[in-house]
Amino acid sequence: MDNCIFCKIAAGEIPSKKIYEDERVMAFYDIAPAAPVHVLIIPKEHVLESAREITDEHAALIAHIYQVIARLADELKLDGGYRVVTNAGPDAGQTVMHLHFHLLGGKLGPMA
Amino acid sequence: MDNCIFCKIAAGEIPSKKIYEDERVMAFYDIAPAAPVHVLIIPKEHVLESAREITDEHAALIAHIYQVIARLADELKLDGGYRVVTNAGPDAGQTVMHLHFHLLGGKLGPMA
Repeated sequence: MDNCIFCKIAAGEIPSKKIYEDERVMAFYDIAPAAPVHVLIIPKEHVLESAREITDEHAALIAHIYQVIARLADELKLDGGYRVVTNAGPDAGQTVMHLHFHLLGGKLGPMA
Repeated sequence: MDNCIFCKIAAGEIPSKKIYEDERVMAFYDIAPAAPVHVLIIPKEHVLESAREITDEHAALIAHIYQVIARLADELKLDGGYRVVTNAGPDAGQTVMHLHFHLLGGKLGPMA
């Protein structure tokens, strides 16, 4: 997608603090962290704008993303737990319309 | 699971403000809402303690849950957006060790 910042990050056209990548997904640190650990996990392809459009067709991708998040949480020593958030739409604070999940760890506040 | 409050809610042994149910999942209002709209979505079976244990085997279930959430968001008129949160482990504030997702809508604060 032209003009999608996450597509450009996935393509390496915009730099990011990447911590994971495979054929399907990429993870990088959020530039404006909301918690001590704040990583974004995205599908590299612009398959969906948000979680609102998830169908059965995306099941394997979503399960894969949750497994990547669990693996990152292990690597980041989030042994006591972590939060996964996805915001769908502007009222929830979604600013980039390319499906992404937030991995939040460390000392966390309320979820809304 | 004995002594799991969400298993008891799914079985109807503990009352809840249910808004959706099918063969696999159930949704009900959180008794301590963190936002104007706060609904919990759970698999009726105690398949997992948290999102940390998701594998490919659970892909269809997770995709189904996201589709139920999108449908509830439509019914609840969350046209401008909504947040989906899952907390994995005590550090993230998970209090019931039966996989569940929070649907949050209305005026939302920060995600952590």
